[in-house]
Amino acid sequence: MLPQVEISVVIPFYDVDSMNIAWHGSYIKYLEDARCALLNEIGYNYKDMSESGYAWPVTAIKVKYIQPALFMQEIKVRAALAEYENRIKIKYILTDNMGGIIAKAETTQMCVKIATRETLFFSPKVFLDKLERYR
Amino acid sequence: MLPQVEISVVIPFYDVDSMNIAWHGSYIKYLEDARCALLNEIGYNYKDMSESGYAWPVTAIKVKYIQPALFMQEIKVRAALAEYENRIKIKYILTDNMGGIIAKAETTQMCVKIATRETLFFSPKVFLDKLERYR
Amino acid sequence: MLPQVEISVVIPFYDVDSMNIAWHGSYIKYLEDARCALLNEIGYNYKDMSESGYAWPVTAIKVKYIQPALFMQEIKVRAALAEYENRIKIKYILTDNMGGIIAKAETTQMCVKIATRETLFFSPKVFLDKLERYR
Amino acid sequence: MLPQVEISVVIPFYDVDSMNIAWHGSYIKYLEDARCALLNEIGYNYKDMSESGYAWPVTAIKVKYIQPALFMQEIKVRAALAEYENRIKIKYILTDNMGGIIAKAETTQMCVKIATRETLFFSPKVFLDKLERYR
Repeated sequence: MLPQVEISVVIPFYDVDSMNIAWHGSYIKYLEDARCALLNEIGYNYKDMSESGYAWPVTAIKVKYIQPALFMQEIKVRAALAEYENRIKIKYILTDNMGGIIAKAETTQMCVKIATRETLFFSPKVFLDKLERYR
Repeated sequence: MLPQVEISVVIPFYDVDSMNIAWHGSYIKYLEDARCALLNEIGYNYKDMSESGYAWPVTAIKVKYIQPALFMQEIKVRAALAEYENRIKIKYILTDNMGGIIAKAETTQMCVKIATRETLFFSPKVFLDKLERYR
Repeated sequence: MLPQVEISVVIPFYDVDSMNIAWHGSYIKYLEDARCALLNEIGYNYKDMSESGYAWPVTAIKVKYIQPALFMQEIKVRAALAEYENRIKIKYILTDNMGGIIAKAETTQMCVKIATRETLFFSPKVFLDKLERYR
Repeated sequence: MLPQVEISVVIPFYDVDSMNIAWHGSYIKYLEDARCALLNEIGYNYKDMSESGYAWPVTAIKVKYIQPALFMQEIKVRAALAEYENRIKIKYILTDNMGGIIAKAETTQMCVKIATRETLFFSPKVFLDKLERYR
């Protein structure tokens, strides 16, 4: 099974808007927090990536907002690797403590060879090797 | 023709990441800046919305990142109203000064009656009236 | 002894600047995270404040930056209540895992009665009562 | 006379908190916007700095908040160079459109030689030369 992780976020004051709910743009941070936790779990975080000679810029992001997240509310962000052969696609579900869905999201990252700035259309071996143990 | 506007953004230092390019999450602010300019142009900005008894939370967001935006680079963000009858859908194109595409995006907003917290599936008259002069 | 708390922050990617260190403005969030933890500990957090009829806006902030905090570095933020009779003054020390000082800071908050918008020059009883057990 | 500049900021939705006023931490961005405009005016912006072999990290920041800045309010941020011989000290005044003071602030930046990471206690000639025409 492909790797997945779940993190907790307590909505901080500096993220809420005049409705006292998390501003929709703040979710991009929660996704990144979960994505970094997932990449840590895989053993291929942002530092590992650049040490391996590759950068993985985010090339697409989609978020569907189902219900608001309130100031001080604890939410869960689950991140699951969905594709890895040609790019990294991660799917996210944000839920409240009762399992009610707050948002769903998806990010895509392409692999760029740092030395040549060339985009790869197949994931490099260093990343695929890290996923060996999940298959 | 449906309304559209274009704004300029100079990528500030606080938005750039360790690559010296705008962090992908910062684009959500640029979209909001352009959206607010578009709603001002229509005469139905966030203040007008809440004074009219309605809130229009963002319910979906999509961004495709084509090329990076560099620190201090001036970019253009064009926002065009794409749907208005049942919800607000706005399409965005971010370009560099040569017209090269930096990103494309889309946001969807649903109308919520503040008093009853009920979601409307048709845009209220107050908003449609504002669009009269564009048709 | 007056209350104090310590929290951990792992510097996230979205907070780092082109030097790969936390942008100096991001520290304001870490201070707020620590301050909210301290106020939780006291039993008088932002929700309790507004339910008690008072708001406590930040009226002054000072930060001294001693050494940078790196991407993914875990830092500690200690917040200690320093004054409470007439206003809330909190002092902060940010340290690395070896105890090396990263920054020092101080925030001041004044009490405003929400109903009348009047500034109080003595802390209200509801807050002083919460501090009873620390004296 | 030492250089000074004034910029305009319209408080964006993503900066306001649950009171519908700019979150106090957002001011650090407005200060940076004004500081960058001042450094542009001097002809020694962040790019010029690093091209000259020096970085100028912010080592201290102080803000006094006098009155709130509201969502969509246009404010002015005036930045004036206050010291330059040994470090850069800039003083800021944020005002509303009637000249009423919203906040006062001060930032200090030390000069670091990038190649050696050594802190300089006298400003380098490249910067002093840029100030020649103001004296």
